[in-house]
Amino acid sequence: MNLLIREGKDSNMKKIINDPKNVVDEMVDGLVRSYPQYLTKLSDTEAMVRSDQASMQGKVGIVSGGGSGHEPAHAGFVGPGMLSAAVAGQVFTSPTPDQIYAAIKAVDQGKGVFLVVKNYSGDVMNFDMAKDMAELDDIQVKSIVVDDDIAVKDSLYTQGRRGVAGTVFMHKILGAAADQGASLDDLASLAKRVLPKIKTIAVALSAATVPEVGKPGFELADDEIEFGVGIHSEPGYRREKIKPSKQLVQELLGKLDDEGKLQSDHQYAVLVNGMGATPLMDQYVFCHDLLDELALRQIKPAFMKVGNYMTSIDMAGISLTMFEVTDPQWLDYLLYPVKTIAWS
Amino acid sequence: MNLLIREGKDSNMKKIINDPKNVVDEMVDGLVRSYPQYLTKLSDTEAMVRSDQASMQGKVGIVSGGGSGHEPAHAGFVGPGMLSAAVAGQVFTSPTPDQIYAAIKAVDQGKGVFLVVKNYSGDVMNFDMAKDMAELDDIQVKSIVVDDDIAVKDSLYTQGRRGVAGTVFMHKILGAAADQGASLDDLASLAKRVLPKIKTIAVALSAATVPEVGKPGFELADDEIEFGVGIHSEPGYRREKIKPSKQLVQELLGKLDDEGKLQSDHQYAVLVNGMGATPLMDQYVFCHDLLDELALRQIKPAFMKVGNYMTSIDMAGISLTMFEVTDPQWLDYLLYPVKTIAWS
Repeated sequence: MNLLIREGKDSNMKKIINDPKNVVDEMVDGLVRSYPQYLTKLSDTEAMVRSDQASMQGKVGIVSGGGSGHEPAHAGFVGPGMLSAAVAGQVFTSPTPDQIYAAIKAVDQGKGVFLVVKNYSGDVMNFDMAKDMAELDDIQVKSIVVDDDIAVKDSLYTQGRRGVAGTVFMHKILGAAADQGASLDDLASLAKRVLPKIKTIAVALSAATVPEVGKPGFELADDEIEFGVGIHSEPGYRREKIKPSKQLVQELLGKLDDEGKLQSDHQYAVLVNGMGATPLMDQYVFCHDLLDELALRQIKPAFMKVGNYMTSIDMAGISLTMFEVTDPQWLDYLLYPVKTIAWS
Repeated sequence: MNLLIREGKDSNMKKIINDPKNVVDEMVDGLVRSYPQYLTKLSDTEAMVRSDQASMQGKVGIVSGGGSGHEPAHAGFVGPGMLSAAVAGQVFTSPTPDQIYAAIKAVDQGKGVFLVVKNYSGDVMNFDMAKDMAELDDIQVKSIVVDDDIAVKDSLYTQGRRGVAGTVFMHKILGAAADQGASLDDLASLAKRVLPKIKTIAVALSAATVPEVGKPGFELADDEIEFGVGIHSEPGYRREKIKPSKQLVQELLGKLDDEGKLQSDHQYAVLVNGMGATPLMDQYVFCHDLLDELALRQIKPAFMKVGNYMTSIDMAGISLTMFEVTDPQWLDYLLYPVKTIAWS
């Protein structure tokens, strides 16, 4: 990832920040000082590790991260039962290999470290380089590249599909398994089985404004929405006039249905995710329509979460993730207790 | 509360909703069906009670609520260790007495019910009427009216100070005490001691748009902010050009300091609350500056939460609550485990 290609019109950026250049530094500092019981920052990095080190003993570490701007991802999911560490890059920019390497080294307990990477070229490359650095240190590392966004193929910043909100389900599943003593090989095989079952698609009502850019990543008219937008304002697949929630649900669910037929005798975990500026009021109305549409297909989610989990700074919009739970143990993993800032 | 008096310019309202008239109905439906393990809706009402009824046995019930538009408040705080029920009115409009009464009746276990009411004339009146109705049923009811907002006196919709985000601390404290068996009288005396220690003040970057109104509650220029705005877009005390986060912190903390001198040898719980459209990025940067300013006063919060707790639909802005913890037991109450959607 890097600075945005398509850009909206100039306007005064209205944000509660200081110098845009220091946003990530100050954000990470504010976060770890607000929640010292959860997060400890590795010095001279933007890598945050679990403060409760004891809970990691004898277990495989789980490390994730990526560009900043997706809060509470990824640091909000660090804690017993979920991630061991999160590495924050600059806004919409991959963290550097040395910072990822620092996190790997800090959480390794001799059992190896598993990396959860979203499919963006920068992230894939930098997490790979960090893996190589760790292996030179005799730390065993395996990884999964999450590509759950079904909207488009080969987007800005990536080849293949993008990794978006469904990544949080991967964090939860692997975190629970690791906490219960799964080996690095177990986790690699689990991640491989889970990956194709997680599918996400989004609709945007506005673009995100990256502080250092100072204007929205693209422009939508007052009455326009865009389907399939990515979490860095990457283009989606269609623009339309704003529609009622019910029709948004039908469009997104229809796309997920086309991708892999939703079946009434299958179990699903659902994540309705706000992109940052969308109020819970809208998210809950969306859920009302979603649950109606699913009921028409005789589907009742086995597990559901609604809220801001993988945001795009101040973008308005919603993503819908359907995770087909083909193994009943995965449901136990989803329900497994955690202690994190953002997943309860 | 009722429809807003000051209004912004006309524009297309961009929301993920259906008919604005059905927003609260559909929102409550979406919420309770997404989280059936937490919430059960009383039929023909917008009152939501704790699904885990067993956890209420033999305990005083705690009921809160108010106009919708403040999500996750209040239903997001219903669950073991916190609220027993939440009643949702129409947007920015008090719930009716009969709905509040239904909630009281549903959660009473013979030990009485305690009401947490934010100081708005409509809420105060309707919760009072519900109390009278319950007492005719021989249900003992006591209540507290929260007025933590120090910005202005005698605002739209209320006499005296408004109840805002600090109300969530009241929910947490009373919920923990009730769960540990406090009597109705204990809770009344606890609430009375806690109330004057909770102080809040906000800054808004934009106004909320009520769906049925269709335009923002007031208008701010692209480079303007307003200090002291209420959670229903009520006027604050000063407009200025947008300032860096550090200066916003200084202004808000200065006002709190004027109100009741912040002391280095006192303990504080802090809530940094996003108003709905403000990304966590901005909230964490604000925390960075806040913790720096507090450190200058040799204050380190004993407890801290950051996120969207008491919102104003899609308003951009932040409120800061300082709760002086004068009794060490209150800290135990804040840390007491809960199972709710929005407080972890």
